[in-house]
Amino acid sequence: MNESRLNQLGAWQAARALARRELLAEDLARACLERVAARDADVRAFVHLDPDAVLAQARSLDAGPLRGPLHGLPLGVKDLFDTVDMPTAYGSPIYAGHRPAADAAAVALCREAGALVLGKTVTTEFAYFHPGPTRNPHDLAHTPGGSSSGSAAAVADHMLPLALGTQTAGSIIRPAAYCGVVGYKPSLGRVPRAGVKSLSEALDTVGGFGRSVRDVALLGAVLTGDQRLLEAGAAVPPRIGLCSGPDAAHADADVQRAMYEASAALAPHAAAFADAPLPGELPDLVGLQKAVMAFEMARALSHERLRHRERLSERLRALFDEAVLIPGALHAMHLAQAADAQRRVDAMFDRFDVLLAPSATGEAPAGTTATGDPLFCRGWTLLGLPCIHLPFRTGTRGLPVGLQLVCRFGDDHRLLAIAQWVHERLTR
Amino acid sequence: MNESRLNQLGAWQAARALARRELLAEDLARACLERVAARDADVRAFVHLDPDAVLAQARSLDAGPLRGPLHGLPLGVKDLFDTVDMPTAYGSPIYAGHRPAADAAAVALCREAGALVLGKTVTTEFAYFHPGPTRNPHDLAHTPGGSSSGSAAAVADHMLPLALGTQTAGSIIRPAAYCGVVGYKPSLGRVPRAGVKSLSEALDTVGGFGRSVRDVALLGAVLTGDQRLLEAGAAVPPRIGLCSGPDAAHADADVQRAMYEASAALAPHAAAFADAPLPGELPDLVGLQKAVMAFEMARALSHERLRHRERLSERLRALFDEAVLIPGALHAMHLAQAADAQRRVDAMFDRFDVLLAPSATGEAPAGTTATGDPLFCRGWTLLGLPCIHLPFRTGTRGLPVGLQLVCRFGDDHRLLAIAQWVHERLTR
Repeated sequence: MNESRLNQLGAWQAARALARRELLAEDLARACLERVAARDADVRAFVHLDPDAVLAQARSLDAGPLRGPLHGLPLGVKDLFDTVDMPTAYGSPIYAGHRPAADAAAVALCREAGALVLGKTVTTEFAYFHPGPTRNPHDLAHTPGGSSSGSAAAVADHMLPLALGTQTAGSIIRPAAYCGVVGYKPSLGRVPRAGVKSLSEALDTVGGFGRSVRDVALLGAVLTGDQRLLEAGAAVPPRIGLCSGPDAAHADADVQRAMYEASAALAPHAAAFADAPLPGELPDLVGLQKAVMAFEMARALSHERLRHRERLSERLRALFDEAVLIPGALHAMHLAQAADAQRRVDAMFDRFDVLLAPSATGEAPAGTTATGDPLFCRGWTLLGLPCIHLPFRTGTRGLPVGLQLVCRFGDDHRLLAIAQWVHERLTR
Repeated sequence: MNESRLNQLGAWQAARALARRELLAEDLARACLERVAARDADVRAFVHLDPDAVLAQARSLDAGPLRGPLHGLPLGVKDLFDTVDMPTAYGSPIYAGHRPAADAAAVALCREAGALVLGKTVTTEFAYFHPGPTRNPHDLAHTPGGSSSGSAAAVADHMLPLALGTQTAGSIIRPAAYCGVVGYKPSLGRVPRAGVKSLSEALDTVGGFGRSVRDVALLGAVLTGDQRLLEAGAAVPPRIGLCSGPDAAHADADVQRAMYEASAALAPHAAAFADAPLPGELPDLVGLQKAVMAFEMARALSHERLRHRERLSERLRALFDEAVLIPGALHAMHLAQAADAQRRVDAMFDRFDVLLAPSATGEAPAGTTATGDPLFCRGWTLLGLPCIHLPFRTGTRGLPVGLQLVCRFGDDHRLLAIAQWVHERLTR
């Protein structure tokens, strides 16, 4: 293979070549490291990277037996995940140089499958809104989104084929949209969160990034243990519901154009294609998600809130100060309302196999002091539904634009099969 | 107050005296430490205890402002919870001497409320079945139950008034039953699990132990942030359903007698009292719980499974070897079946405010090489329902026997209010 372009190989293609030993893990890792060396001074996707250790591990993978479906694939790991052999700071100065005693479960599962952890990628502070140094590889003056900023940017910039992320509000789908990669947020509870800094029991979800649906399916199958995620070719034309939701007016012209183009491309081929309004009696899901997240973050991060207040960002302190005023009884009611909304929205999937929805309000905003608005993700995260972002066009300023698909709770294998079907038609 | 008996004070009573500064935290801590010194060579409830550090913290609490509802109360912390100032080994030699970088959220919340962490209590290995050294304080030849062995035994033996535990199968309710204390397992997701060694997303629940319903309500209000848990006096006579479930035949004569006695004591006063059979079409909840737990444990503990196999107990290795054979698609089906069962059982609570059910198959079994059978807890844990164990009699061998109450998901405040009403009538 042409070594100068090895870093551009998608995960699926590289995995096949690695499994046949037509491609050496070392050569692939070297190509990725070279790309990082060339670009990361600008993009700043990584907080930790040790090239010598990576190459030593790559050689060890080449010399040993095939480990599994991710054998030899370089993987970026959001610095919200514990790694036993790399420092883990959760995006906070409180944990600078912290060395966890174990790998996060998701990291261990990927390593068991043969993945080669290339390095730790930038997260915002505790996966909230205070940004890290990462810039959008398509335009360095723009944010890559957050909180999985480094993972999305590194995959987008061909520094590596796959990366891990997490979503509590919109931290997988939004950076995937801004960076123009595929981002997959599984159904709540399908991927173990052990060893991932916890923000919210009700919301935190482990997922990942790749440059194609098949690539994230490969990662998703390892993370969930569900082999059906690999059956991407099995899709029959789906029944698609168009669901911009109550915040449709916040989608800018680029996103509206994407919705229109996708409709034109998909409607003729889908088994059904129609507007899919949310049930009328739903509560304000965005407001509910914000309140649940605030209450739970202030409690999950109690140690940091109580002992390290002076080392928290102003924004996080402000969140905590508001959150501690939320009565626990109100939070219990919020969780009950969310459960009720889950039941109501579930019924939509009797009529539609998948919902097509905006991922973000527009292209990545200019500036790197904020990470953009997760408005179009909060509701789906609160509902726990599996989501995938599909990039397929550019917007007014030449930055990536795409849309997300949302499936019924637990139907992750269906989501990925339909996403493959949809993405093929959007990128023809 | 009579210092020689301070260690016997319940949490509620002690908290009141501490808040009025009629009782010094130092005196209470000293009494508890003296009890530990006198008894723990036999009971072996603690894995870590530093009396000097405890007394220094007690004096600091006495000298400072009132912190909150747990001000000055000695608290036992199961060694599955991270503590920043005490080693945390999760019951495994892999983590001997491990020093976490932060307190678990539940520990930090208790400390914020003024609790004084007295020490770390014995857990079975990763809260599974391989026992620690703890013995039942009522008869040292018997197990205290597991996995929260040390917390239940320490509270039962008046070494401290409150302790933290976790339940994934039956690890709060069962040791509470064997040791004769009140054990409270909240609704799934109501208490943050951050910093607690994770076994299962679908099952792990943080809760605690005390010697009365009011005592655990005090702790529960801090853990959930829900002040309604303190309104124990507000209960009106409840509608009680008697629910021995499909495994009723496994309850021995002592437990059957407890069910009979409770019925006789409660039926005349309850708003309604009737048999409450589970819906006929339910799947085998016990089998389902076992399968979900096995699959998720083998994945949540991937790091230990892959890197430290030789330092795992035979029993845990055997679990992992079986668990990795469970297909992910089957696990997804199990989760869907559990969600369906949750909906069906939820309907029972239209007719009953609370279910009265066995907590264990009998008194604590003889021997300390096993921790007894969580049979009567597995189903409720899978359903995520709030449970409380109430001790009220002794069995054939003079060991404690009691029953558990189970409420609708999210109705923790109701569970505790009803438990207070029920316990008063059972212990008259």
